[in-house]
Amino acid sequence: MNAAEFLAQYQATGSATDLEVMSNTLAILEDVKKRGDAALREYTSRFDGEEVADFLVPEAQLQASWEGLEPELQEAMVLVRNRIENYEQQIREKNKDLGEISYVLNPVQRVGLYIPGGTALYPSSVLMTVVAAQVAGVKEFYAVTPMFDTNNITFATLYFLGIKNVYRLGGAQAIGALAYGTQTIPKVDMIVGPGNAYVAAAKRIVYGEVGIDSVAGPSEVLVYTDGNAQVDDVAYEILAQAEHDVDARTYLLSESADFAAKVSARIADLVGGQKRAQIIAASLENCHYTVVDSRENLLEVANRIAAEHVSVLVAPEDAAEIADAITYAGAIFVGPYAPVAIGDYIAGPSHVLPTASAARFSNGLNVNSYLHGHAVIQLGASTYADIAPAAKRIAREEGLFAHKASLAIREKRAAAEAAEAAVAAQAAETAQ
Amino acid sequence: MNAAEFLAQYQATGSATDLEVMSNTLAILEDVKKRGDAALREYTSRFDGEEVADFLVPEAQLQASWEGLEPELQEAMVLVRNRIENYEQQIREKNKDLGEISYVLNPVQRVGLYIPGGTALYPSSVLMTVVAAQVAGVKEFYAVTPMFDTNNITFATLYFLGIKNVYRLGGAQAIGALAYGTQTIPKVDMIVGPGNAYVAAAKRIVYGEVGIDSVAGPSEVLVYTDGNAQVDDVAYEILAQAEHDVDARTYLLSESADFAAKVSARIADLVGGQKRAQIIAASLENCHYTVVDSRENLLEVANRIAAEHVSVLVAPEDAAEIADAITYAGAIFVGPYAPVAIGDYIAGPSHVLPTASAARFSNGLNVNSYLHGHAVIQLGASTYADIAPAAKRIAREEGLFAHKASLAIREKRAAAEAAEAAVAAQAAETAQ
Repeated sequence: MNAAEFLAQYQATGSATDLEVMSNTLAILEDVKKRGDAALREYTSRFDGEEVADFLVPEAQLQASWEGLEPELQEAMVLVRNRIENYEQQIREKNKDLGEISYVLNPVQRVGLYIPGGTALYPSSVLMTVVAAQVAGVKEFYAVTPMFDTNNITFATLYFLGIKNVYRLGGAQAIGALAYGTQTIPKVDMIVGPGNAYVAAAKRIVYGEVGIDSVAGPSEVLVYTDGNAQVDDVAYEILAQAEHDVDARTYLLSESADFAAKVSARIADLVGGQKRAQIIAASLENCHYTVVDSRENLLEVANRIAAEHVSVLVAPEDAAEIADAITYAGAIFVGPYAPVAIGDYIAGPSHVLPTASAARFSNGLNVNSYLHGHAVIQLGASTYADIAPAAKRIAREEGLFAHKASLAIREKRAAAEAAEAAVAAQAAETAQ
Repeated sequence: MNAAEFLAQYQATGSATDLEVMSNTLAILEDVKKRGDAALREYTSRFDGEEVADFLVPEAQLQASWEGLEPELQEAMVLVRNRIENYEQQIREKNKDLGEISYVLNPVQRVGLYIPGGTALYPSSVLMTVVAAQVAGVKEFYAVTPMFDTNNITFATLYFLGIKNVYRLGGAQAIGALAYGTQTIPKVDMIVGPGNAYVAAAKRIVYGEVGIDSVAGPSEVLVYTDGNAQVDDVAYEILAQAEHDVDARTYLLSESADFAAKVSARIADLVGGQKRAQIIAASLENCHYTVVDSRENLLEVANRIAAEHVSVLVAPEDAAEIADAITYAGAIFVGPYAPVAIGDYIAGPSHVLPTASAARFSNGLNVNSYLHGHAVIQLGASTYADIAPAAKRIAREEGLFAHKASLAIREKRAAAEAAEAAVAAQAAETAQ
């Protein structure tokens, strides 16, 4: 289809939560808030079929998991951590001293990590969320992950990152434990990490009580090409995204109809041979879009979609222009040596990125997500004397008379002090 | 009470939303999504008792409102705008070019402003939200404000700031209009501004679909004193905050019991003479706390509360140490010439600040709230060849084989290109 046809039928998926899920989740959260550990035990028994005496994973188990990893995998993790650390250090916001006002940043004190269990274990997500927080200066982490014995790689990664408070706990109840605290688990300030619909609903409900990273939707890639790319490079970008799950969204935006056709044919050839062929086929059937049009129109489409991952595979001389024109994206991957997977694992920037058009208004998770700034305002007498009258005038307009009085009672003092200082400065000048 | 007593009974208010309000709000939002302007008309008739043909406020009316303001008030607004602009420009995050990776910031495209109507008209909030956005580079604003003829000052402020898309529309339906778009009102990317419980619930529900500033609770001030301050300065900080509404929270943390008693007595003397005496008295009754203890214990209390506004009124030589030790606060006001009201109106930093302990994990609204960054990743062949093997190893561990393949297909090319480049570099060096 062309850009106009695409835009006419396009609807961002959004991330609204079903009210029934919301209502069930709310009941669980309120119960955890009220009954603490007893509620956690009950829900873990009901939903995970496990009777738990102690949620805390013994440190020896974490250590054994790490020590059991192949050296090659351990080394890969070290390299990943170093690259993330280096990138995040460079984009970390800095305090600003502006004289009478300064802007001061501090890290969040306690971070809760939700880590899904089961078959989809992503150590890379643990690395991405934790290392950025550590660069911000976060010292206290509390990780929750459901009851599975396949969790070795999660435990290993947590041990590698120095995290010792790890609890076998999943679902909305785990979010409740982190948000409100229980006898065993302390209340945290911010909860990060992906989960199922109940986890997402719980995060939405506790948002405000604690900070959250985002409410994530299905994964997405948008490949932008002018036809000057390797067909396989493009095809594998689509396949790699499609293998995440059947709802993963893939977009091929091409200035060349001929090239788009070649890519589609190549994808069709390759699907059957993929290990996750069924997922890929379903995902391509549900959520794959090919749009062929002019550069101008395709760039409009790209900015409307604001995809989580945008791959720009075009003639090298046009790459910078196109990457610049795509202002809404989770992350942009340019040229033959930047497949999305290199960003997923090791390039450095976080792979926790906005989905479902949220890149139109938000960032991926990074070091600055864990920092919060506040202004420190300490005006001198002279500035105060200059600006207080205008503040009083607006306070009067707003009908806030005690505000006005709080300004007025300092005015004479400030004027006197400012005048004194001016006289002293004058005298000092004359004396020179 | 002392710090231990306070902490034992202290519960952050949180900002959880009532499920019934949530459910009613959801119905309104879904209706607006489905029926657009027709639904807006119906709810405006039902809730505001107004039959509206056209929601758009004529530009002539905005202009006339501005031109009707006293020159003194106009000048005050110009001064406020300039000071906000200056501050926000200085704390604006910058793009980072890190060689093979860069971090690029862009402003949100469309911002929706919710502005409450009725008796509480705060032009200062309009200035604080809009000017920060304009410094970020936001060009498109859509303001909604309920149907009141007393809205002159709101209209005047919007005109002054160059905003022409102003709609007479309030409540959850106005949030729905901005989040989903209707025939008249375009869908925006981010919604900012305070409102009632329905507006807050609506913002929480649409969060994810669009960005929001925060879910704000009652206003708060925490005054920290060691007894070296003017009794009136402290007393008026408490009174000014208490006049906002009956739920406004005020905390007096004092190292000196004697001084705390003097402040309390002075407040008691002053209340009756305040224009908003009833609100102040109710608020002091409900939500005023005095804690007297050692510096160490009081600082712990201050960081637990993480108040929206923290006023530090202590001996000058101790001010910096205490302000530094308070790491969780919306904004900190230090010394005799920084009453909170100077920050509310004119100091420069935003007065849209986190409440209900949200300062433990979040910022006030500022220029960076309207910017979102994304990484642009463009690796060279040599870096790629170095790091792709580690990425492949983790992809294998995660069972994402098409990810692994997307990495593998580029590996030989990258190695060859890197080797070629190394030979060329060697040759160039030899030739010199």
